[in-house]
Amino acid sequence: MTSPDAGPVHFSRAAIVGVGLIGSSLARAMIENRLTDEIVGFDADADALSRAHALGVVDRIAADLDGALAGADLVILATPVGATKTLIGEIGGAVADDALVIDVGSVKGAVAAAGALSPERFHFVPSHPVAGTEQSGPEAGFASLFRDRWCILTPLPRQSERYKAAVDRAAALWRAVGSNVEIMDAAHHDLALAVTSHLPHLIAFTLVGAADDLETVAEAEIVKYSAGGFRDFTRIAASDPVMWRDVFLNNKEAVLEVLGRFTEELAVLQRAIRWSDGETLAKTFTRGRAIRRAIVAAGQERDVPNFGRDEKKS
Amino acid sequence: MTSPDAGPVHFSRAAIVGVGLIGSSLARAMIENRLTDEIVGFDADADALSRAHALGVVDRIAADLDGALAGADLVILATPVGATKTLIGEIGGAVADDALVIDVGSVKGAVAAAGALSPERFHFVPSHPVAGTEQSGPEAGFASLFRDRWCILTPLPRQSERYKAAVDRAAALWRAVGSNVEIMDAAHHDLALAVTSHLPHLIAFTLVGAADDLETVAEAEIVKYSAGGFRDFTRIAASDPVMWRDVFLNNKEAVLEVLGRFTEELAVLQRAIRWSDGETLAKTFTRGRAIRRAIVAAGQERDVPNFGRDEKKS
Repeated sequence: MTSPDAGPVHFSRAAIVGVGLIGSSLARAMIENRLTDEIVGFDADADALSRAHALGVVDRIAADLDGALAGADLVILATPVGATKTLIGEIGGAVADDALVIDVGSVKGAVAAAGALSPERFHFVPSHPVAGTEQSGPEAGFASLFRDRWCILTPLPRQSERYKAAVDRAAALWRAVGSNVEIMDAAHHDLALAVTSHLPHLIAFTLVGAADDLETVAEAEIVKYSAGGFRDFTRIAASDPVMWRDVFLNNKEAVLEVLGRFTEELAVLQRAIRWSDGETLAKTFTRGRAIRRAIVAAGQERDVPNFGRDEKKS
Repeated sequence: MTSPDAGPVHFSRAAIVGVGLIGSSLARAMIENRLTDEIVGFDADADALSRAHALGVVDRIAADLDGALAGADLVILATPVGATKTLIGEIGGAVADDALVIDVGSVKGAVAAAGALSPERFHFVPSHPVAGTEQSGPEAGFASLFRDRWCILTPLPRQSERYKAAVDRAAALWRAVGSNVEIMDAAHHDLALAVTSHLPHLIAFTLVGAADDLETVAEAEIVKYSAGGFRDFTRIAASDPVMWRDVFLNNKEAVLEVLGRFTEELAVLQRAIRWSDGETLAKTFTRGRAIRRAIVAAGQERDVPNFGRDEKKS
């Protein structure tokens, strides 16, 4: 279900808690699109926070969390999922009446469950922009990160008109920074993302870790010959370790379920290799092309199909 | 061990057997660098061959394999590994005296073993350019594919001066199209590439296949949310199925060995998720960053670290 267009959106003061890749990108996108009069920043990492200020990502640094939240009509919790769950329970006293509160995490069930206990006088709308890079920190943020990407909202089961208006405002905010917005329930989100994001990261981390452990092939060789396929995995395996630890700790069931499917399929291919069953191998390998074509056609791949062809022409 | 520079290299007639991505790229690179007076093409797929001719990738089409080989001082076998093994046994009668014969396959042990039986009057130098894209066919080729990539040679155990001169000529050819050349034994090649190329492809094919099988998450959703990590796998999972079938059938032992390492590591992470062992997860996830930095520093990743930032500025 796609939410109806809620029209122009504007905030008088946005509080951003967590000025890493996602928080700083959203701040830059809001500045570029003039979506707020002021951005107040807070981060447990004081050094990251002062760098964000120096970069112009936030207008003002708050001395503490309550100071960041005071008077903000938009609160963005851009922290790892574990911290977000805690924050949702702690900010109740300081958030302004009728404020919109969003998070940006890759797991929604655990966060929505924590948010369900929050007071009704402000409106928590769990959000997940499906976008990112392997970089971290305020310097890594850029305004176009969310453009042409999907943002999934998993609203709490609240029926008040004020809550529904807040969901519309959250959708309008994400659209204003270039995203397509989808609304679904948190459990389905967590399963879909276990497939499209969590399992791929787990596999990439595993592959890179296993290569690092080999005594028979030196790291220098792995680097040299990484163009054979390995390097495609290292991009996502370079993602933030704490963020990903929290994802797996908070989406355990869905990840273990899709991981079970993966290991089943892997066992089939392992057996096919062992028994020289070329037919099973070729048949399985053929399936990749259709889904790749669909991803390129849907504009979800910024690399052109002729990957690497152009930049070497000069 | 790096082979000494053999100076300028030139051929009077190059025969290219197989005008797919790698064959047509090497043809284009040789034309661009004026490394041959003429290129004669042959391909079991007559349609691909006539398209290659129309594209100017080959100067002339041979009616049959022997016609392509006759009078060529360079023979390039750019076919899947299974076909290459067969071809090496079949071309003995038609190849000119003292001709250099190279292949381009991703497995070297099986090809070198077949080549060891070839007559000594021509010189087979097994070659593997570690470069490629997920595209196939003569249209997919481009001259800069091999630039700044590594090409691994695994010479036969032949000690004649004429064979050594042929190895130097092969190295000079690959350098002339922009590659760095490394010489190693075929068994080590097959293990190193099992890690950096074969296992990553197997894992990517498996992941995409497993996603394709799910009843609970629709393909449309997988495509939409692929920016979460999944799309990084689909590029290599879109690679040529026949080429990859042959790789796994011909590098069975090394692939099964590194696959064993991978599944061990995966079992450790699976258990860490099940038992909420965040410390093991974070520790493992931290290892990805170092190797990613090394790959970017070595110029083996054409994407800049600020991935996706630039092309959206306009």
